[in-house]
Amino acid sequence: MLKVSIITIGDEVRIGQVVNTNAAWIAKEITQLGAFISNHITIGDDFDLMLSTLKSEINKNDIIITTGGLGPTHDDITKPVLLKYFNDEIIFDQNSFQNIKKLFNSRGRPITDRNKLQAYIPSKSIPLLNQLGTAPGLMYKLPDDKLLFVLPGVPAEMKSITSNSILSIIEAKIKQQNHNVILYKTLHVAGIFESSLADLVGDVDEFLELSTLAFLPSYGGIRLRIGTEAENFDIAQKEIDRITEILYKKVGQFIIGEDELDLATLLSEKLKKRKYTVAVAESCTGGGLGFEFTKIPGSSSYFLGGVISYSNSVKNEFLNIPNKILEQYCAVSKETAELMAMNCRLKFNSDYSLSITGIAGPDGGSEDKPVGTVWIGISDKEQTTAKLFHFGNDRDLIRERSIQTALLMLFDLIK
Amino acid sequence: MLKVSIITIGDEVRIGQVVNTNAAWIAKEITQLGAFISNHITIGDDFDLMLSTLKSEINKNDIIITTGGLGPTHDDITKPVLLKYFNDEIIFDQNSFQNIKKLFNSRGRPITDRNKLQAYIPSKSIPLLNQLGTAPGLMYKLPDDKLLFVLPGVPAEMKSITSNSILSIIEAKIKQQNHNVILYKTLHVAGIFESSLADLVGDVDEFLELSTLAFLPSYGGIRLRIGTEAENFDIAQKEIDRITEILYKKVGQFIIGEDELDLATLLSEKLKKRKYTVAVAESCTGGGLGFEFTKIPGSSSYFLGGVISYSNSVKNEFLNIPNKILEQYCAVSKETAELMAMNCRLKFNSDYSLSITGIAGPDGGSEDKPVGTVWIGISDKEQTTAKLFHFGNDRDLIRERSIQTALLMLFDLIK
Repeated sequence: MLKVSIITIGDEVRIGQVVNTNAAWIAKEITQLGAFISNHITIGDDFDLMLSTLKSEINKNDIIITTGGLGPTHDDITKPVLLKYFNDEIIFDQNSFQNIKKLFNSRGRPITDRNKLQAYIPSKSIPLLNQLGTAPGLMYKLPDDKLLFVLPGVPAEMKSITSNSILSIIEAKIKQQNHNVILYKTLHVAGIFESSLADLVGDVDEFLELSTLAFLPSYGGIRLRIGTEAENFDIAQKEIDRITEILYKKVGQFIIGEDELDLATLLSEKLKKRKYTVAVAESCTGGGLGFEFTKIPGSSSYFLGGVISYSNSVKNEFLNIPNKILEQYCAVSKETAELMAMNCRLKFNSDYSLSITGIAGPDGGSEDKPVGTVWIGISDKEQTTAKLFHFGNDRDLIRERSIQTALLMLFDLIK
Repeated sequence: MLKVSIITIGDEVRIGQVVNTNAAWIAKEITQLGAFISNHITIGDDFDLMLSTLKSEINKNDIIITTGGLGPTHDDITKPVLLKYFNDEIIFDQNSFQNIKKLFNSRGRPITDRNKLQAYIPSKSIPLLNQLGTAPGLMYKLPDDKLLFVLPGVPAEMKSITSNSILSIIEAKIKQQNHNVILYKTLHVAGIFESSLADLVGDVDEFLELSTLAFLPSYGGIRLRIGTEAENFDIAQKEIDRITEILYKKVGQFIIGEDELDLATLLSEKLKKRKYTVAVAESCTGGGLGFEFTKIPGSSSYFLGGVISYSNSVKNEFLNIPNKILEQYCAVSKETAELMAMNCRLKFNSDYSLSITGIAGPDGGSEDKPVGTVWIGISDKEQTTAKLFHFGNDRDLIRERSIQTALLMLFDLIK
């Protein structure tokens, strides 16, 4: 196994001002290569702690990746720490400077001395081109064939350097040094309770052999994660395929997707293939369903648009919901949800439409219709229906669950 | 200083399948009390590594908080690790069982044996009520007045137990034991370049004394984070206030908010106070601006709704943008953005409106209008204008920046 440690540096992450998306992204990319992430560590801009963490992680791992602390301000002390750790000195790197010049030229801005400072790098490091920013990444070749990669904390820059320079090095290293490979595959299951799923899967020891199977419930369904270790990538992949096949035989009718494919992506493929179009009418989600549809590149080929009918007057004017219906049944009702969906489909002239109307709270709930009550409507040329859900009492979760459930309803209908 | 370590347990976080929002949330809450977060560590469901991490973190810190691994499946090994670490045995906790019964009754579901297992806890631990789930939190009183808190990984449950049971204990501990307190305050600055801001702030050594000031550029502007350490909360707060006052004198006209107050929240207060209403017309953000407005509880008092005009036909039909305009100037143009904003305001009869039309990519760009080109329009009774932005070439970032910039434009207009 090639053991990898991820170190995130920065007070803003340490004190929780920024969520550590960098570590998750790096971990996911490197796990896909078959390497083993041993841990993520987040520390502040603290010279001594950075030194001791670097030391212990280099000691325990084959590859160490740090992000953060490479900027041009006095808080950014990653380079001084490296100079101390490797007993090194700073040198001017012409290539990095050319890159900085190119960046500033393209933005039409002059280079300041502070920007130029970014072209100074530790002499024992190998610079890695940063196409999106002024701080080059740094690579160190360490004893025992270990590698240290030092990256800026800006997510786009970190991702660009990792994708362009680091992943291929790690991939080659795993192959050349015959490291054992660990692979994972996730199957997304929906429409069945966890206990019933476990019954259908049966005794896992009968087919898992040396692999593992984790049951991970989430509000969109249940994730089944297969994990396997083998002497190389191909053997691991075959073992994953073998178990995947068995699981498809056992619970295939409930599997809606694999790996990171989320519902919006899955739907996107289906809608594109069949040339269907969709429109949305959103109340409590305020546009979130449309936002989720349109995160997919190319969504304009099937997503026509929508109406955010947050107030009743908008429901009335833009979606022709009669005030009588809104008064008699209220905005959060089967009747309103169905009319929203149907009229949305007709107005947008789409093949399908989805509507969401609910009480996201914290106010607005009643004994009859407590916070978390959500009606989701769906309409095609043949039918219009709406389903009632209770999504708990956390505003953000209610909205997120509404969006994912609406996507799932459309996914099921097209299936 | 009360030193706190946060340990996140779970393979799904380790391999990057899930972003570690738990650690950020805990860090932020505890930092606000004046405690010092020394680090966050993420490890997998690995018995030995959990044991050794627990040992070293207890050794180096006053308070240790773990999340994850308390579920009812075989992957969840936090309780076995605790039994081993403390040489302890498991006992049935009647209170925890009553809570589980209550939860299942309220959902109208029967309790299975697997659920009942959750009421068994290590005898040396003190259970902390989990109002939202079946796994109670656990507290251990350790030698040298140290504390270990063990929490479930489900974010809502972790948050509920932390808020209800843990924060007050930490707060009291800081006071009783006379720990030094570290506090931070962030001022959000917009409408000025970082270098000009630095010039206006001037020599920080003249007023910082023992405090620190970090400049953190972000795409919505620049964050100025003051950090200070003092012998108690009141003294630290006074020092923060003193520096805040100085910064307001120096750059007050550019400060748009404090601490975690984001733009949607700031706008919400302004709109509510002045009883203004707003509507949106969104193209490339697909509903994201509406979603951002409506994340605020009570947003229905000022947010009327919007049109997601993802396709040109929707721009034409719902927002009366003449096809001639769309053909002559194209959908991503000053003319279209202004018409979208104006017609949206008129159709929704709102005081203000915002429109966004741009090229989020990766396709659809041209030499003239590359990916990242975004026009944002704004309209009130007196004027309608639109501004051109270039937000790079990352689809998610382009959409996020468009949303935040639109909010900022409205914020500035109302100011």
